[in-house]
Amino acid sequence: MVRANELTATHALRLMRTGDLSAEGLAQACLERVRERDAAVRGWAYLDPELVLRNARELDEREVKGPLHGIPIAVKDVILTEDMPTEHNSPLYKGSFPTIDASCVKTLRAAGALIFGKTDTTEFASVTRGGTARNPLDPSRTPGGSSSGSAAVVADFQATIALGTQTAGSTIRPGSFCGIYAMKPTWGAINREGLKMLALSLDTLGLYARSAEDLDLLADVFALEDRHHVAPFTLRGARVAACRSPAWDKVEPATRGAFERGIGLLREAGAEVEPLDLPPAFSSLPEHHATVMAGEAHVTFLSEIRAQPELLNEDIAALANNSKDVGKSALLAALDAAAECRIAFDTIAAGYDAVLTPSARGEAPKGTTTGDAALNGIWTLLHTPVVQIPGFKGPSDMPVGLSLTSPRYTDRRLLQVAKAIGPLFESRGSEA
Amino acid sequence: MVRANELTATHALRLMRTGDLSAEGLAQACLERVRERDAAVRGWAYLDPELVLRNARELDEREVKGPLHGIPIAVKDVILTEDMPTEHNSPLYKGSFPTIDASCVKTLRAAGALIFGKTDTTEFASVTRGGTARNPLDPSRTPGGSSSGSAAVVADFQATIALGTQTAGSTIRPGSFCGIYAMKPTWGAINREGLKMLALSLDTLGLYARSAEDLDLLADVFALEDRHHVAPFTLRGARVAACRSPAWDKVEPATRGAFERGIGLLREAGAEVEPLDLPPAFSSLPEHHATVMAGEAHVTFLSEIRAQPELLNEDIAALANNSKDVGKSALLAALDAAAECRIAFDTIAAGYDAVLTPSARGEAPKGTTTGDAALNGIWTLLHTPVVQIPGFKGPSDMPVGLSLTSPRYTDRRLLQVAKAIGPLFESRGSEA
Repeated sequence: MVRANELTATHALRLMRTGDLSAEGLAQACLERVRERDAAVRGWAYLDPELVLRNARELDEREVKGPLHGIPIAVKDVILTEDMPTEHNSPLYKGSFPTIDASCVKTLRAAGALIFGKTDTTEFASVTRGGTARNPLDPSRTPGGSSSGSAAVVADFQATIALGTQTAGSTIRPGSFCGIYAMKPTWGAINREGLKMLALSLDTLGLYARSAEDLDLLADVFALEDRHHVAPFTLRGARVAACRSPAWDKVEPATRGAFERGIGLLREAGAEVEPLDLPPAFSSLPEHHATVMAGEAHVTFLSEIRAQPELLNEDIAALANNSKDVGKSALLAALDAAAECRIAFDTIAAGYDAVLTPSARGEAPKGTTTGDAALNGIWTLLHTPVVQIPGFKGPSDMPVGLSLTSPRYTDRRLLQVAKAIGPLFESRGSEA
Repeated sequence: MVRANELTATHALRLMRTGDLSAEGLAQACLERVRERDAAVRGWAYLDPELVLRNARELDEREVKGPLHGIPIAVKDVILTEDMPTEHNSPLYKGSFPTIDASCVKTLRAAGALIFGKTDTTEFASVTRGGTARNPLDPSRTPGGSSSGSAAVVADFQATIALGTQTAGSTIRPGSFCGIYAMKPTWGAINREGLKMLALSLDTLGLYARSAEDLDLLADVFALEDRHHVAPFTLRGARVAACRSPAWDKVEPATRGAFERGIGLLREAGAEVEPLDLPPAFSSLPEHHATVMAGEAHVTFLSEIRAQPELLNEDIAALANNSKDVGKSALLAALDAAAECRIAFDTIAAGYDAVLTPSARGEAPKGTTTGDAALNGIWTLLHTPVVQIPGFKGPSDMPVGLSLTSPRYTDRRLLQVAKAIGPLFESRGSEA
């Protein structure tokens, strides 16, 4: 018998509709799991069980149930919530309790979701020094970051869904490290209002779930729309591009193995898989990403360093002070090159059903630094949708995932592809 | 004897430094002006005189005075303030009081500014149906919008500086209608966090003042940086492009006259003025602006229409429901065309010290609709800095301004140009 907290949202909602599960019951199962596991995983920045249960009961009493009725959703603590503090893991915001919801939280509440608690993040969703959260599969390792707690609590069955953010690889990488599904939608597809800003041209809301169906359910709630009509998808005869990405030199054997195994599984399933070498201009994208992130973060943190410089950690202070000395000419050159590559990539990727590419360098590293976003930054800069699919294992038996991406605003199509590929990778990715 | 509330910030700060004026004294003068004029101008959404005076006294007691010590700054009521409500002129946010400052407000407070009150805006800084504010020069006319109250209270000497926002022409147009200076910096130059979102790729903080020096002072506080070293500027020998803009067919005789007179004054002062015809691709920019604004606003207002559809006015509901039926292909085509025009415009405009172009169709219209942003949207889409310079008059003796623009991230240089051109237009623009 599966415990309710282990269900996907799609499965739980089926039981809710037949009366076999209530929002309160699901909340209680998740809270029980938190009690068992929080000392090891430490994924929560704020969690008030009384508030959770009160809200769950209130949802159960509603006559009209929403499409996410009672689904426990963990929220990265850089995203505003009207009934919980939002502290950004920063002493500057200790006890800060703005009484408004971020736009995404408001949309989820309107769909009947149960906003469960706030999750651990690296400071301001920036830097790679971790917060408190540990990888639930091996507490000596990082869950990745900056959306550390969000990935960890979903992987550990303490919440069903979680929200993260991504400016470089802050959603996709933790998804790979923790062995769950993650999605970075097209830049602009979901309103970002109420998310702490890091870099204006890069910041994107991220989604965590334990199935591609659950991501598709969230895509419904957030009204994601594609540029084209979404046709049915089958793996047999599908065209998949295998893109090593401009950061392939950073890839470790664990990811290299997953990539080769993934290609093999797709071919076995009847898909055509072709290697995709991106045009030469794309090889500068990792550098452009770094330039845009530094150049924009310099503007972002002006207010914090002016207001309370003594409370800012040295890495954030370095961003605020533009320690990389990114000038506005360099920023514009990077932004403009990215704009041109976006147009080019949409055309290239339109020739495939999806582009397969690494999610991370390898397995989750030991220790508390959250790992390297080298494999993610270029897709964030290109604004394309990315879905991380779990299923592979590295030499330490830790999860390794692969990413699917596609042209901007083909998020729904990409989720169709992910729904077909996900079960394949999950069932056979780690076969010996 | 000039009353303190009539001083520019630059002038007031000089008197503060010599001990001839205090923050409290300046605040009292502004509050007195509010008492005299608020019934006619109706520019404030929230103003608590006790809070203002308490904060002014606290600033006067500080040992170290900031670069904006005691300068009264009015804040458009779509910008978060930790000590005042933020209601967006929407019943959905009636009484909403999130206890955080927008990034820009935090930066201003850190500089010693006196955050004075919240100003009237059209609902969510969107739509053209006005709020309560009236044009201080003729209460039967609009001050423009959506930053209606911010422009009105600065023009009426009730505050020294004000913050607005611009997604189409919401800062520059009211500046023209009210006869004051206004600035829309380069997109991305000032952190937008804590401003209500309307359109992700367009929204920009706007600034109001009664002199170009005051705008430059704000540029210091916001640490605006140019792409190049800023060389000294003199009008004699300067090269100015006169750009009628792709929306010239909307221009009324008042603006046509101001444009011709402005060109004549620049030539008299020794500048070379050349007509600038933009390349054919630019003629689609007004349409692209409309597409981006509608396509992005559709995403922005999802949460509001899901949460409380009954409290959303019909124009905002139409945006949320994408009544213009802007698809994602059209959105991307507009975004990508704009990205290419940005690169082209920077090259074109680099050949001039500034580009002169209309700020509005003509004088402020009668009634409460806030006028047409046709002349502003393309610059907002191009992300260039724009400074509105007052000085001209139309047939009804109402103010008409002209805009200066220049390549992205040449804001500081543009302010040097504005400091030279402003006094010329102000002193001689309305000569018979």
